[in-house]
Amino acid sequence: MKLREIFATNLRRLRHASGLSQEELAHRAGLNRNYVGLLERAANSPTLDTIERLATELAVEPVRFFDKPAGH
Amino acid sequence: MKLREIFATNLRRLRHASGLSQEELAHRAGLNRNYVGLLERAANSPTLDTIERLATELAVEPVRFFDKPAGH
Repeated sequence: MKLREIFATNLRRLRHASGLSQEELAHRAGLNRNYVGLLERAANSPTLDTIERLATELAVEPVRFFDKPAGH
Repeated sequence: MKLREIFATNLRRLRHASGLSQEELAHRAGLNRNYVGLLERAANSPTLDTIERLATELAVEPVRFFDKPAGH
């Protein structure tokens, strides 16, 4: 499983856990809504700065985006 | 401590542990040597794809780049 796929899976999981829509999360993190969708489909490779902003808005440690999904 | 600073500290530590120079690591990972220097000074924010390539060449799990340095 590629790193961006692990990230994508965790981003979607953590965003759902927060109750935020893609649009809400994008707005809070200063990102384009479509870009959040791309990240959740592993279609783009975010920078560390973007990862940090997403972690801040989701109130999680950045390392949580790298947890390996069960079964991998 | 910003995420890119944590990354920078760990990149330098793991590279030293591997015995590779910045130039050798850059060559193996298909990156510019100056870029590896920028990353180790937290002067640039790498993408996940770049982080994955560096982890592969250093033979570490990508999550090791996010270990918090002692004292932080």
